[in-house]
Amino acid sequence: MSEPIPIIGGTGALGWGLAMRLARAGRPVVIGSRSAERAGEAVERLARAAPDAQVEGLVNAEAARRGPIVFLTVPFRAQAENLNNLRDALEPGQLLVDATVPTAAAVSGKATRTLGVWQGSAAQQAQEMVPDGVTVVAALHTVSAQELGDPNTQLDEDVLVCGDRKADKARVAEIVESIPGLRAVNAGPLEAARIVEQLTPLLISINARYKSRAGIRITGLGAEDHWR
Amino acid sequence: MSEPIPIIGGTGALGWGLAMRLARAGRPVVIGSRSAERAGEAVERLARAAPDAQVEGLVNAEAARRGPIVFLTVPFRAQAENLNNLRDALEPGQLLVDATVPTAAAVSGKATRTLGVWQGSAAQQAQEMVPDGVTVVAALHTVSAQELGDPNTQLDEDVLVCGDRKADKARVAEIVESIPGLRAVNAGPLEAARIVEQLTPLLISINARYKSRAGIRITGLGAEDHWR
Repeated sequence: MSEPIPIIGGTGALGWGLAMRLARAGRPVVIGSRSAERAGEAVERLARAAPDAQVEGLVNAEAARRGPIVFLTVPFRAQAENLNNLRDALEPGQLLVDATVPTAAAVSGKATRTLGVWQGSAAQQAQEMVPDGVTVVAALHTVSAQELGDPNTQLDEDVLVCGDRKADKARVAEIVESIPGLRAVNAGPLEAARIVEQLTPLLISINARYKSRAGIRITGLGAEDHWR
Repeated sequence: MSEPIPIIGGTGALGWGLAMRLARAGRPVVIGSRSAERAGEAVERLARAAPDAQVEGLVNAEAARRGPIVFLTVPFRAQAENLNNLRDALEPGQLLVDATVPTAAAVSGKATRTLGVWQGSAAQQAQEMVPDGVTVVAALHTVSAQELGDPNTQLDEDVLVCGDRKADKARVAEIVESIPGLRAVNAGPLEAARIVEQLTPLLISINARYKSRAGIRITGLGAEDHWR
């Protein structure tokens, strides 16, 4: 039995897609939402897409207590508010996997441009805001939420994982790679999120032009040794 | 007969690799260098790797006059100096393809980090510095110079092309795609170079970890309609 995987913002497109894919891969998931009612609705929708899912729906702070590795999949506009609300819920030793992208859409700007975050990246802002002893790993920025949430699509792309401790990243990589078609690539320390978070606006721009749901693949890595 | 393709900084690893690949694809190339002697040596080396090459070696300012689309493949440290030296050589109507990446290595920092460029990117700095009527397109940041310069390697990756006019980018894409294994992807306006230039330090970091010569592939684009 693997541990439940809480997803804060699990009613949003990225969070729900992640929950659905993980549930279909046999992982227990916990959908967190600001409202217990919306969490419950997302659980019902998920149960239709993944009939054998082990899933529960809770308000975010309760969801965050359910497992050691917590995913945060909220818009940048809501990231700081969510992290404030989780201060009493997160405990030392937990990992927070931040997927936040600081697109300018947060302030009515273009989703093809980003905002400068004083700390360097949304992930580094998250690391500053979580309680002492909680470690942030950044991942999942480049996976199309539409693609992820469509159970009929076969994924075939990479997830770039940034974090300061290799062992932490490896735990996140294991979860990511339990979803068929996703390969986790070690993209360096947490500060590399400054780069990786920028890939989302680039892909949004490409998607507008190509009518695609683009993702990223790093070429030239050995097929076997995909995690280092 | 296609027009000669000048490569400023063609004795460097990226420039030479580009020249060699283009020459093997049957394109006439002009290797530019600060010194005519070094240009000549690069031509000799190229003639061994591509026996049928149409190639000449010239000092940069003379090379830049030889064709309508000029590639600039110099280190960031030397970019502004080169553009100053080309002020009298470049003429309205020419395209300058900038491959410069502002890594912190330019100031003895890490190649896995970048410097902030006031204009937003090295390519935008180039656009500011070229004579009026010369247009900058940014490309080739993510292709490993080692990989490009190794004639025994089959390339299999994308080149992200940024520029403000689609027709200009299409001309650059045509040259890029004359090299087997490279696909050009329209990555948006020139300002998107702010993002694309950051991919090089990311790949350098991945290469150090994976002992690879990594590149980038955009997934989810149709195989047929690769240029939009």
